[in-house]
Amino acid sequence: MPGPHDRTVRNVLFIMADQLRRDYLSCYGHPTLHTPHLDALAKRGVRFDRAYVQGPVCGPSRMSYYTGRYVTSHGAIWNFVPVSVREQGLGDYLRPHGIRTAVAGKTHMEPDVAGMARLGIERTSEQGVLAEQLGFEPFDRDDGVWPPGFVSEHNQYTAFLKKHGYVSDNPWHDFANSAASPNGEVLSGWEMRYANLPARVKAEHSETPYMTDRAIDFIREQGESPWCLHLSYIKPHWPYVAPAPYHDMYKAEDVLPVKQHSAERGDDAHPVMQGFQRFAGAENFSQEAVRKHVIPVYMGLVKQLDDEIGRLMAHLEQAGRLEDTMIVFCSDHGDYLGDHYLAEKELFHDTVARVPLIVYDPSREADITRGRVESRLVESIDVVPTILTALGVMPQEHILEGRSLQPLLHGEAIADWRDAVFSEMNYAFRDFVRLPIQQPIERCHGYMVSDERWKCVFFDDLRPQLFDLENDPDEFHDLGADPTYAVVRERARERLFEWLRHRKIHPTVSYPRMAAWTRKEQEAGIHICAW
Amino acid sequence: MPGPHDRTVRNVLFIMADQLRRDYLSCYGHPTLHTPHLDALAKRGVRFDRAYVQGPVCGPSRMSYYTGRYVTSHGAIWNFVPVSVREQGLGDYLRPHGIRTAVAGKTHMEPDVAGMARLGIERTSEQGVLAEQLGFEPFDRDDGVWPPGFVSEHNQYTAFLKKHGYVSDNPWHDFANSAASPNGEVLSGWEMRYANLPARVKAEHSETPYMTDRAIDFIREQGESPWCLHLSYIKPHWPYVAPAPYHDMYKAEDVLPVKQHSAERGDDAHPVMQGFQRFAGAENFSQEAVRKHVIPVYMGLVKQLDDEIGRLMAHLEQAGRLEDTMIVFCSDHGDYLGDHYLAEKELFHDTVARVPLIVYDPSREADITRGRVESRLVESIDVVPTILTALGVMPQEHILEGRSLQPLLHGEAIADWRDAVFSEMNYAFRDFVRLPIQQPIERCHGYMVSDERWKCVFFDDLRPQLFDLENDPDEFHDLGADPTYAVVRERARERLFEWLRHRKIHPTVSYPRMAAWTRKEQEAGIHICAW
Repeated sequence: MPGPHDRTVRNVLFIMADQLRRDYLSCYGHPTLHTPHLDALAKRGVRFDRAYVQGPVCGPSRMSYYTGRYVTSHGAIWNFVPVSVREQGLGDYLRPHGIRTAVAGKTHMEPDVAGMARLGIERTSEQGVLAEQLGFEPFDRDDGVWPPGFVSEHNQYTAFLKKHGYVSDNPWHDFANSAASPNGEVLSGWEMRYANLPARVKAEHSETPYMTDRAIDFIREQGESPWCLHLSYIKPHWPYVAPAPYHDMYKAEDVLPVKQHSAERGDDAHPVMQGFQRFAGAENFSQEAVRKHVIPVYMGLVKQLDDEIGRLMAHLEQAGRLEDTMIVFCSDHGDYLGDHYLAEKELFHDTVARVPLIVYDPSREADITRGRVESRLVESIDVVPTILTALGVMPQEHILEGRSLQPLLHGEAIADWRDAVFSEMNYAFRDFVRLPIQQPIERCHGYMVSDERWKCVFFDDLRPQLFDLENDPDEFHDLGADPTYAVVRERARERLFEWLRHRKIHPTVSYPRMAAWTRKEQEAGIHICAW
Repeated sequence: MPGPHDRTVRNVLFIMADQLRRDYLSCYGHPTLHTPHLDALAKRGVRFDRAYVQGPVCGPSRMSYYTGRYVTSHGAIWNFVPVSVREQGLGDYLRPHGIRTAVAGKTHMEPDVAGMARLGIERTSEQGVLAEQLGFEPFDRDDGVWPPGFVSEHNQYTAFLKKHGYVSDNPWHDFANSAASPNGEVLSGWEMRYANLPARVKAEHSETPYMTDRAIDFIREQGESPWCLHLSYIKPHWPYVAPAPYHDMYKAEDVLPVKQHSAERGDDAHPVMQGFQRFAGAENFSQEAVRKHVIPVYMGLVKQLDDEIGRLMAHLEQAGRLEDTMIVFCSDHGDYLGDHYLAEKELFHDTVARVPLIVYDPSREADITRGRVESRLVESIDVVPTILTALGVMPQEHILEGRSLQPLLHGEAIADWRDAVFSEMNYAFRDFVRLPIQQPIERCHGYMVSDERWKCVFFDDLRPQLFDLENDPDEFHDLGADPTYAVVRERARERLFEWLRHRKIHPTVSYPRMAAWTRKEQEAGIHICAW
């Protein structure tokens, strides 16, 4: 808890875990996976219980987190889709106010190289680098996940591994994300059957501690100068490989029961869901033996993450930074791990679209909400405006589509909080989903509209999905074709239509400028059709 | 008619008139305003009878013409709203193919100076200049309309006027767009009561012939090298001032009868329409005396435009360019001139949103349609893809939202032409509309959805407008609140919803790239959740 000092927010530590499910943290209810450090953070701040991401896959979700805009607005509809040069990120808003804004870890940002070339932007210029990083200074940008054969020359973590004696073309793969056979052969972490074996690195050389160290380096380097650091862990995202002792810390009994129901499979299941169930990984994870083999390792990776959060918090406390640093902890989406006969992500079940979100605000105004569990609907696009308001920077209302969480953090009375959350997906990139149902590439969009009770998902040309979150919290029973709920679906559809009409389409003109226009035109002597 | 040569399209002359009503051309039915040169162009090509602009005001409409995208997509929702650096124009598509693409005249393009600064784009670099001009080389960019006091130093037309002895700080205003009192006093063309007096320039020095000369200069300069020129006349846009003899060529009897109906005024009129009727210019133009005083001059300006088109066509013919040059003639929107008790533009009546569009395609494939009047629905966003296909450049389907008119120009059988057109407006910039109805600045969007029979307009929080174009072609009777037509409105609303869901939001990833994704991922060795 902060001391008797000023406690104005001067810095922000914006932590993200990759593919972390909310129910695999003890503060969100996991019975045996104890995450005391994250739980302590929740006690210091506010734990949001209904936080949704704007897209249930890395790229779109992250671009929404970083831009404060829905996927439809920023346009990065899937992984590796470049964010157009039009879009601005957190750093673009904070840097003019003297706040160094950097990333240590993953962003999944794909630069708009064609747009940059057309505009003559040098990729190596200061502005070019920031454009490529969506406004983050790349203190140690590292997306990980280097497939075999990739050469990751300019990657700092790879250099670190080599320095510590893990030498190969791709030590990320060969050491940090692989195991070894008894005779020393590399057993690739891409293959889940090796998940139970320890990684070929010491824990201290694995990705999560490395990036924690880098964050500590950055924070030290900053001294008393203000900063905003996006610390973005690659884990517990696959490859599901953990270093000792995390690789065998959990047993099959610690794995949460699978969420599967016969109604979710077969011809009556939604065609898009059937499509994703066709993915080989989903077939693997649908087997109980695979789950019990792999998920304990996923849990180990979460445990390691929590331990590192503990180390980081200790550093912040010792450096006095807990008194002037806001901390945001979140995930870009969850991981099906076999639930609903699915693997990975991409659909809108709570398992994936509803994420952990904890915000610690050191200011006195937030003392009233410490330890609170907030159940109002929040969205990942709220993070940018929350950070801006905490740092005293006015959010650009005509660009940002999220709402500052500050009133919730400060326990203020709010008359009109949002009544629905929105998320988007696109399966155009997935042959095995699109081709069997013969959807044209431009008609593969899915939209989720969810309030606290009803989650409705709309697709082009296909029937909607509908889940009753109150009576069917596991989302087994798709009511999308049930005539009883026509009115519920129609209401959600209207909500989506209204939402679509109010996307922020004009980032180049602000509301105050619009409001002053008529007067300014007159002042400029433009008297149109005067007599 | 082209001679017995090759007749492949190698050049494009894309002509736009500003604020030109379709019914003020004789080929579109004006009884006494003869426009023989445009009529002849229509005879050589195809005259489109149902062409709609994407926004009934200069900036948004033009940005749609130039980008081939709807207003919601390019984001320039009103005049002077900068087009974000993300957007590309005609020149950006043609230049890589060696086709010089330039503008002579007006574009109303407002550069995204803030975006350029953020990205470190030098405004004076080659790419910077093109970014500021939405891809057009500014051969002679001239938006005109320089209010009193403005200093138009770098304007070529202003320099031309000065060179010809019209010397003042703002000769555009003081000579080309003003008259003189008997004692030589400047009578500003901003005041319509002077419309009947001749401009203080000789006809040959007025804006329309000047820009025609510049087009001829450009075409001569190009010789046999391929080009695309946007020749964009400022007239007949206000100030309503014409040089002799055009200032008194037409009489009050030549003015088309006003389209006004008592049902359009008063408390039953749509609140947004009432708002625009409140504009001082609308009150002026609602008076018959004003119309009869001013419109003859508007007609003179149209007549001068037609004469200049004649001169230009003669040059093209003499230079042999009619055999390899596509010609597009259009308008950015009409002019109410008192119809519906309105002035200027901004709403969706056919008077304003439905424009003249004539396309001449020299190729043999188009011989079959010469002189045809095409009544299928077309949109201004069709111009870019039409030009691209004519020049053999593949349109970027994931960015461009219009359809190439080539099949219509070539008389091909088409199974599925569009069944509706869309246009957008925003009255947030208009105090006199927005404030009386207390709409927040972000809820002032209007959408038109029109098929051949029904034109429906939707606004935030207000009732829709509905016009029966078949039985009420003058659009006097707004059926927007009539319960008889609830089904018609609901159908249009569904159409709008569908349209909104399919805007092209991802300019950075093409459809073929999306279609190949799954396969490429596998080839890259990314085997997710493999066992």
